[in-house]
Amino acid sequence: MAVYTDVAADDLTRFLSGYEIGDLLSYKGIAEGVENSNFLVHTTAGNYILTLYEKRVAEGDLPFFLGLMEHLHARGITCPQPVQNKQGGMLGKIAGRPAALVTFLDGMWMRRPSAGNCAAVGEALAALHLGGADFKMKRPNALSVESWRPLYQQAKDGCDKVHSGLSDSIAAELDHLERAWPRALPQGVIHADLFPDNVFFLGDKLSGLIDFYFACTDTLVYDVAVCLNAWCFEVDHSYNVTKGRALLKAYAKGRALSAAEREALPLLARGAALRFLLTRLVDWLAVPAGALVKPKDPIEYFRKLRFHQSVKSASDYGFSA
Amino acid sequence: MAVYTDVAADDLTRFLSGYEIGDLLSYKGIAEGVENSNFLVHTTAGNYILTLYEKRVAEGDLPFFLGLMEHLHARGITCPQPVQNKQGGMLGKIAGRPAALVTFLDGMWMRRPSAGNCAAVGEALAALHLGGADFKMKRPNALSVESWRPLYQQAKDGCDKVHSGLSDSIAAELDHLERAWPRALPQGVIHADLFPDNVFFLGDKLSGLIDFYFACTDTLVYDVAVCLNAWCFEVDHSYNVTKGRALLKAYAKGRALSAAEREALPLLARGAALRFLLTRLVDWLAVPAGALVKPKDPIEYFRKLRFHQSVKSASDYGFSA
Repeated sequence: MAVYTDVAADDLTRFLSGYEIGDLLSYKGIAEGVENSNFLVHTTAGNYILTLYEKRVAEGDLPFFLGLMEHLHARGITCPQPVQNKQGGMLGKIAGRPAALVTFLDGMWMRRPSAGNCAAVGEALAALHLGGADFKMKRPNALSVESWRPLYQQAKDGCDKVHSGLSDSIAAELDHLERAWPRALPQGVIHADLFPDNVFFLGDKLSGLIDFYFACTDTLVYDVAVCLNAWCFEVDHSYNVTKGRALLKAYAKGRALSAAEREALPLLARGAALRFLLTRLVDWLAVPAGALVKPKDPIEYFRKLRFHQSVKSASDYGFSA
Repeated sequence: MAVYTDVAADDLTRFLSGYEIGDLLSYKGIAEGVENSNFLVHTTAGNYILTLYEKRVAEGDLPFFLGLMEHLHARGITCPQPVQNKQGGMLGKIAGRPAALVTFLDGMWMRRPSAGNCAAVGEALAALHLGGADFKMKRPNALSVESWRPLYQQAKDGCDKVHSGLSDSIAAELDHLERAWPRALPQGVIHADLFPDNVFFLGDKLSGLIDFYFACTDTLVYDVAVCLNAWCFEVDHSYNVTKGRALLKAYAKGRALSAAEREALPLLARGAALRFLLTRLVDWLAVPAGALVKPKDPIEYFRKLRFHQSVKSASDYGFSA
């Protein structure tokens, strides 16, 4: 939640002269986005977001992310549209970092999403999966099941200081998921990080999806599992079946889930919970005690994992028969 | 450089309903301002800055800061103008914090200020001092000479880990400044923190001054001394006399310095350097090693202090005879 790289006004003016978006009037670093540095850029032509890609984003993946946003935008998904420079490219360089400009989306993200918000997200997620179906580029999910054991190794020694018994619980869960992980379900473009802060609303209406920097080619229903984790739990970590039902029903209206996909949902939800538990754990352990900027609490996802382990079938998530 | 307090969209909508500034379209936490949380708020009526005042700002001082901005704005100083709510007040409450809305100023701050920028700042500072002359409220400078010894006591034990011999150097400087600090020079409203990130430019033209949250009633020429420290040194910590001359000449055009003010300048510049050295030192020592967000380097101001100690008279700063 910080700006990692600052940009000087004359460097930005020079950068913008490569685009046809008018004259620079102001820019502010924005305290959003955990991986990259983002600036809200105001020009005589309007508002834009300038993103500087920091170390954690592989430069080779940028054409996938930017191409995907352009592809989805062209198919009617409201998401930031990369702005082409005068040469027709979408990627530039500023302050030593790869950088891109995208259009600014109005809207607010919901700190306390309602069941109606969850339905809107389910609908948008199905539209994203359908809209991405003819996207030609591929990108493997760098944070899928194969990556979890190395993340666990990184966090292992510090685990039990965060929560007693956590290390053994993760080890057991990993063994189970690596054995049982489904490989034959329908694949496609997934967002993979569609948390509330990546979904904008104007009033009750969803006004846009942002932050495609974890998007990849993976099991579509895994994306649904990520959303159940991100949208359908209360602050006390209890699952809200009304929200789950709203999300799943709205998704199924756009894209029906097969029997195999439904059946796999509890396992995929466990996997999604473990994925966020592990990355948060690694971030948590990397930051010294007392630091001003605290990473997100990993234990929230341990609680969610516990819930998913207790689930007997997909109907526990709110699927109507 | 962070947002300390997050704001939920429905809380903000409720807050904004107390103002006549249209409907909320978006808001983003901005990574500027060290003391408070700031949001760029976009409504159907335009752009605004929402500031949530955090612990380090005393609530009792807010009427001074907001009243001053209103006063200066009415006198033609381009600075944010507090927006009045429907009751005519300027101060509200959101997320448990005192909060105010001010108008948004276009412009960019100069990461590498030129001599021309320094002249523009000198001119604006004189205008601010003149414009503030009939402002009725008073606020003592909480970071003037009386506060420095307590700050030193706080930092004392950690000083020499930051720079060998620093503790003794500060102690000697403190003894000197406490004895010699001038008390009889012209007083008035000073900005007290007019660093480059608080001055906006559009092209070469100064477009506004922001961040009045250190403003107070103090020796006017001390404000000039703060600006010499903040604007006229190079990245290698050497003093740039061309910039100093530009700043001082432009200031004097608006408000001439008396002989006594000129004579006191080297001492006031030492005081200003020590003030920023001490507050940065305290912040530096409060943050654990390895934290993501690093406070500003205190030693920069130790180097500047060393320069001021070597100055023989105000003419070394670029005053023409």
